[in-house]
Amino acid sequence: MASSNQPGVTDRELEREDGLLERDRVAIEEPLEIRLAGDPLAVTMRTPGDDRFLAAGFLFAEGIVGALEDLGGVAHCGRPGDDGYGNTIDVHLAPGVALAPSLLEGTRRGTLTTASCGVCGRRSIDDLLARVGVLPHDGELVIPRALLASAPGLLAHHQPRFAHTGGVHAAAAITREGTVLAHAEDVGRHNAVDKVVGQLLYQGALGAPAILAVSGRVSFEIVQKAAAARIPIVAAVSAPTSLAIDLAERAGVTLAAFVRGARMNLYTHRARVG
Amino acid sequence: MASSNQPGVTDRELEREDGLLERDRVAIEEPLEIRLAGDPLAVTMRTPGDDRFLAAGFLFAEGIVGALEDLGGVAHCGRPGDDGYGNTIDVHLAPGVALAPSLLEGTRRGTLTTASCGVCGRRSIDDLLARVGVLPHDGELVIPRALLASAPGLLAHHQPRFAHTGGVHAAAAITREGTVLAHAEDVGRHNAVDKVVGQLLYQGALGAPAILAVSGRVSFEIVQKAAAARIPIVAAVSAPTSLAIDLAERAGVTLAAFVRGARMNLYTHRARVG
Repeated sequence: MASSNQPGVTDRELEREDGLLERDRVAIEEPLEIRLAGDPLAVTMRTPGDDRFLAAGFLFAEGIVGALEDLGGVAHCGRPGDDGYGNTIDVHLAPGVALAPSLLEGTRRGTLTTASCGVCGRRSIDDLLARVGVLPHDGELVIPRALLASAPGLLAHHQPRFAHTGGVHAAAAITREGTVLAHAEDVGRHNAVDKVVGQLLYQGALGAPAILAVSGRVSFEIVQKAAAARIPIVAAVSAPTSLAIDLAERAGVTLAAFVRGARMNLYTHRARVG
Repeated sequence: MASSNQPGVTDRELEREDGLLERDRVAIEEPLEIRLAGDPLAVTMRTPGDDRFLAAGFLFAEGIVGALEDLGGVAHCGRPGDDGYGNTIDVHLAPGVALAPSLLEGTRRGTLTTASCGVCGRRSIDDLLARVGVLPHDGELVIPRALLASAPGLLAHHQPRFAHTGGVHAAAAITREGTVLAHAEDVGRHNAVDKVVGQLLYQGALGAPAILAVSGRVSFEIVQKAAAARIPIVAAVSAPTSLAIDLAERAGVTLAAFVRGARMNLYTHRARVG
């Protein structure tokens, strides 16, 4: 279906306001079913590509996979040429790696939180911190404000699909030296972050990045994925939600948002920014 | 927790780039668990408010509720003052309304599509059309281009939370006369649309709007909700995805995107725009 030379991008016809017909590039959106040892676990609408990293990053953020050694085979289901090939990925855990049924059930329901009557943000934070712990702030990591301000620019170098379509979000993992270790674009904000975390997992580079840069807004889910991946600073181009700030505060994550040009808002753990 | 006089908005402290501390308004994000007759069905991160409309609109888009008459009681679970009160809503169907277990299972898994090996976009469209049918284009509904161009402006009149926080999406249902029948803001794009559809359902106004206006991008899910609610035109401020265009084409929905000032791109069923 893709007819653009940019993976994840295709063409569609459109009529402009002046009545002219043209073909324009749009971001590809297709479902991906993530299976665990053959059992359907979740379906996400994503931009095809880096599916292995997406699946691994997703399972890592959910706490089902704790390290690269937990992963066995990860492969698309079926055979090339089959109808729908490439849209189902099956993850097998390494021999001897046990699954916590409660985690699986929570992931299937779209939440890790269950309670007799009702979920709430504070409890979601409690549950997450019980699993991933608090990021220590030992005073060693201080990032120059200028590096933080440069994060959206570093991210922009890796946004060819956005440049073509205006329809994808981006995420990147950046070291304290300003090196981009992993980056991804996807129609889903959370997918872009999962793909970045999945790459770090496969590179053995979890723990190396200082900054997770994201092109859009920051929700609870984005900070959750940063906290799980032990990335101490989140830098976002757009707005944070209340629960993103509250989670960042309690998880020890520095949250910078509205990072645009020289402007930025620091919401939590500002001591990491020098 | 809210300390702003705008519902759905609260305050948090931040440090600006010049080192000044101030309090700024941010959009509230909290989980909402939707239950069906006491059984957990889905959890969505949303901006509190209009939860009844969100739950009804969600169940309508999923095909679990087909009309207002199908709905019995819809109420938050627990009692005011309970921890987490307001974040769980329990929907009861009217006596005699049957549930299709396959729909429920699909909703729980986050998709209505199942297959022996793999999901795919085309099949997702097939399944949806089998359920909601194709919107007829009988030549009667022709919307002036100027009305379509005015949709983002009409939407902007109902975006006080965005004006304060920059952190929420908006949706509105607009008649061919330019009247806004329903509108909502939410941290989740799909939630804003569900709240609008839920309002239309409770108003008995399904079938009345000509345009669903949305503040952001258009994914498969947004067009799906418009098609299910029989709204023939979707007007978006930002980019569409490939699957949104393909679904709109096959479902008989007119898709306009990048609607900004006098500019707009018409991707599908352009005959409805005069």
